Amino acid sequence: MNDCVFCRIVAGEAPAAKVYEDDTLCAFLDVRPVARGHTLVIPKRHAAELEDLDAELGAQIFRTGHRLALAIRRSRLAADGANLVLNDGTAAFQTVPHVHLHVIPRRHGDTLRFAKGFLLRRPHDPISTAAAIREGIAALDNEGTSPEKETEG
Amino acid sequence: MNDCVFCRIVAGEAPAAKVYEDDTLCAFLDVRPVARGHTLVIPKRHAAELEDLDAELGAQIFRTGHRLALAIRRSRLAADGANLVLNDGTAAFQTVPHVHLHVIPRRHGDTLRFAKGFLLRRPHDPISTAAAIREGIAALDNEGTSPEKETEG
Repeated sequence: MNDCVFCRIVAGEAPAAKVYEDDTLCAFLDVRPVARGHTLVIPKRHAAELEDLDAELGAQIFRTGHRLALAIRRSRLAADGANLVLNDGTAAFQTVPHVHLHVIPRRHGDTLRFAKGFLLRRPHDPISTAAAIREGIAALDNEGTSPEKETEG
Repeated sequence: MNDCVFCRIVAGEAPAAKVYEDDTLCAFLDVRPVARGHTLVIPKRHAAELEDLDAELGAQIFRTGHRLALAIRRSRLAADGANLVLNDGTAAFQTVPHVHLHVIPRRHGDTLRFAKGFLLRRPHDPISTAAAIREGIAALDNEGTSPEKETEG
């Protein structure tokens, strides 16, 4: 799997601004971000498409995406929302053949900046951006709970 | 929650072409599909945004999206892939304030049709489309396994 850039990141053989890591998955900044804080969550074990991915591992990837979406709201990035996107298959514009969930921070009124980001996809100081997201994760952890709050119907 | 169209669908008070349902979530065709078979997976209990959604329920929603992505490949829709998209918050273009995961079937070479679908968002015979997806789910079930196949590294 040395020809897979995401496997090389997992192995520490390619650089990445990591924001989260555990035994089965890791999350790092997209090198061509659509917006500041655009993060990818990937399984550590190579799986090209959803067809190849264990269902429980898929659920864990999403759980991490969910937590990141909450974390960036609490971070200095001050996101108002996020797009969580998983493009499965080349037909669906998947460009790297290793399953990855995009978590893209959004802010109110950012539509034009977002459109520009899609065209330019330029990095935004990865070191401070990754640090901001890790701080958001810590802030979320300090709330002492998983995101289990429920709205009262 | 009677003013929430998705809660009304859950309660059976609004029509929907359902493709899957269990105790905690249901999946039905988007009434303004980007592509044929465009499905939404929602929690039955109202949660406006990821901030309001239980983490385990979020994981279950994704698990169902994952299964649907595999099912549509096995269905008459003969998808080659799918976009799984969760827009969290109005800043991220979430239009209905009840968490929903989009599962959008994709086929090789459909880029122009996909772009057209984004503009038109017209239904494609919901009854036969929902039936096709349910058949895909049954085909997946008949394989006797969850999607636990792993590529060999």
